[in-house]
Amino acid sequence: MTGQDRPEMTALERQGAAAKAAARVLSVASEEQKNRALLAIADAIIARADEWLAANAEDLKAAKASGMRESLIDRLALDRKRVEQIAAAVREVTELPDPVGRTIGETVRPNGLVIQKRRVPLGVIAMIYEARPNVTVDAAVLCLKSGNACILRGGKEAINSNLCAEKIMRAALETAGLPADCISLVHDTSRQSSAELMHLNEYVDVLIPRGGAGLIRAVAKESSVPVIRTGEGVCHVYVDAAADLDMAAEVLFNAKCSRPSVCNACECVLVHESILKPFFEKALPLLDTKAVQLRADGPSLEVIKGLGHAAQAADESDWDTEYGDQILAVKTVSGVAEAIDFITLHGTQHSESIITEDAEAAKKFLDEVDAAAVYHNASTRFTDGGEFGLGAEIGISTQKMHARGPMGLEELTSWKYVVYGKGQVR
Amino acid sequence: MTGQDRPEMTALERQGAAAKAAARVLSVASEEQKNRALLAIADAIIARADEWLAANAEDLKAAKASGMRESLIDRLALDRKRVEQIAAAVREVTELPDPVGRTIGETVRPNGLVIQKRRVPLGVIAMIYEARPNVTVDAAVLCLKSGNACILRGGKEAINSNLCAEKIMRAALETAGLPADCISLVHDTSRQSSAELMHLNEYVDVLIPRGGAGLIRAVAKESSVPVIRTGEGVCHVYVDAAADLDMAAEVLFNAKCSRPSVCNACECVLVHESILKPFFEKALPLLDTKAVQLRADGPSLEVIKGLGHAAQAADESDWDTEYGDQILAVKTVSGVAEAIDFITLHGTQHSESIITEDAEAAKKFLDEVDAAAVYHNASTRFTDGGEFGLGAEIGISTQKMHARGPMGLEELTSWKYVVYGKGQVR
Repeated sequence: MTGQDRPEMTALERQGAAAKAAARVLSVASEEQKNRALLAIADAIIARADEWLAANAEDLKAAKASGMRESLIDRLALDRKRVEQIAAAVREVTELPDPVGRTIGETVRPNGLVIQKRRVPLGVIAMIYEARPNVTVDAAVLCLKSGNACILRGGKEAINSNLCAEKIMRAALETAGLPADCISLVHDTSRQSSAELMHLNEYVDVLIPRGGAGLIRAVAKESSVPVIRTGEGVCHVYVDAAADLDMAAEVLFNAKCSRPSVCNACECVLVHESILKPFFEKALPLLDTKAVQLRADGPSLEVIKGLGHAAQAADESDWDTEYGDQILAVKTVSGVAEAIDFITLHGTQHSESIITEDAEAAKKFLDEVDAAAVYHNASTRFTDGGEFGLGAEIGISTQKMHARGPMGLEELTSWKYVVYGKGQVR
Repeated sequence: MTGQDRPEMTALERQGAAAKAAARVLSVASEEQKNRALLAIADAIIARADEWLAANAEDLKAAKASGMRESLIDRLALDRKRVEQIAAAVREVTELPDPVGRTIGETVRPNGLVIQKRRVPLGVIAMIYEARPNVTVDAAVLCLKSGNACILRGGKEAINSNLCAEKIMRAALETAGLPADCISLVHDTSRQSSAELMHLNEYVDVLIPRGGAGLIRAVAKESSVPVIRTGEGVCHVYVDAAADLDMAAEVLFNAKCSRPSVCNACECVLVHESILKPFFEKALPLLDTKAVQLRADGPSLEVIKGLGHAAQAADESDWDTEYGDQILAVKTVSGVAEAIDFITLHGTQHSESIITEDAEAAKKFLDEVDAAAVYHNASTRFTDGGEFGLGAEIGISTQKMHARGPMGLEELTSWKYVVYGKGQVR
């Protein structure tokens, strides 16, 4: 009678049914039991590090043979220090408060009904992500602590590392008395497994894609399982006429250059037409230290070239590109209203910053820009679970449904209403 | 350069772009301004009641000519009293507190950043619903008060009523100084317009289907716009061995019969095997007053027939049917664990009730049953925005993402992080 018994089920449906059954057990596990499982996972990662590194070495060998780019190989690679960092991060998750079971609202109705609103896990969370073996562990343990079973579908380039991490974590779950099926990896890394996962509505409550914009857009478009879009970031810094130009240059430099590959890095600076020259006099020397390439519109291009600096003319596609690299688009605007319009049209609702000493302009920008995080006089790089004080994050949501911005444990939960009566009828 | 200008846009894309532009204005409108618009709508509904009733008469004439069922005609029909009730409900929405702009969290980080979490509207909400003209107004005004533009796609049977309601509301918006495009109706009621709306991702933030299970499942499966599933209800009452049987009979009677067409009505009673006879001795006389038909499993069928009462044998399909009628499925279970398993398999995560004096059984049921609302000793019929004290509701979410249970104004919002700095960089 249960889903698990149907003979015509695919391998992935069986995996989904097993995850759903495990999620039922996990949803009522105590915080103490979940922490015990987390510590068992951290211990096992250290104890079995050689095994994991050997599996990773196989992936690295294949990656090098296939001519993978150095920056991608770096993301794929594990070493003893990284393994220790991953295990330490797992231990840190035990310190985060468990949101599950918490009463977040209570009302007593005139008819005597007591209505409590209580946090519950989402159920089964699926993740589709690229070739970073640390994500396999990070995602699994955040799901575990928030009471959710997870189905992980990592990139094929990391398959050996991921299979090994799965084996280590599942064994650790069992030693802690929780079902191994709380964590499982999709072993088939074909396109088809990913497509099937996007339609596994019967077993998967939420699908979180993590990776490049192409992956995320494709998943959001195809999936019938509810999706939380994460991490697409075409972020702007707007330097207002009333900006402190030293601050503006420092903030832009940090937002662009401190880690250009991440989603909260700045891709485009909007500069008020009245301060083009004095601003670039301050900003260019900083950007030059990282050899940042500029793609500038007419007025800014003229000023930049006038300062004896190289720059390319921007074309329309530059306004919608997440470079993820030491490249910066430059757009001249006539004021905060035009900056807001431009961001509305070209932003990805991630992180947007205004640099100004004008309180009114700042208020207008903060109120009207539609993004997960809006900043006054600070770098967009702060949009991060750790920086926001959430402890850890599973991704940064750029949608408005369910959760917005950095997603910590609480964002991996839902609620239920628990109603106590004495025979009340309506 | 803006979306509105592209010549190749479809009519619905233009409508979407107009709604999105209006949503930007509405998102920063004050509560006072939104309330002024609501009162203008309520006034206009009364002032133009004759016009609306005439349009409704056209729909009713067509409905009768097409042989529509009486119960559906009743849902479609407006009269002066209903119009007055609808206008009064609009006025009530002015009394509900505006969630938008509220600060729901604030933290000061060690680096001095002040991070505020602030409620914002979702943006553009689309609704697909069936032939009830009151939904057109109810949905529009809840979206309006929560700062969201809406695109309404009602059933073709109500098209004249809906066109008239749209005209009245849009004119009222303009008199209150808000863009008419905050509220718009999809004039084309073909299947194709509905399909196009489900893929209008560029302009629509959330799609809420309201209607029968078939409509909701079809939308959830097809839509690439994020969906909030509402109102599918195969709800159970579990009568435990330790139940107060008088209470159990009263609660079941209320849950089944007080309004069988609604989603929080009970479709199936689960009865502990040890109390079949005494329970049905109390329940059958009540159910008989509404001529409820029973579809019972083996053991319960035997007991019911033994009491000289008619009943049909249930088949597997009965366990998954939302009758919406005076029909009740009956299933015998061996205890709370089997009741939970049965609900896990056949429930729709809407509303589930246990009747028992056994605190331990109640706790197990409330903890382990996965539903928007779980009840101890009360009728499932209370799952409702008004009954829960939310004021009004746009629907009852049966999913875990974003919102669960009755959705009031707060559930029509998201949040943004507003971060105040002094030049901080990371």
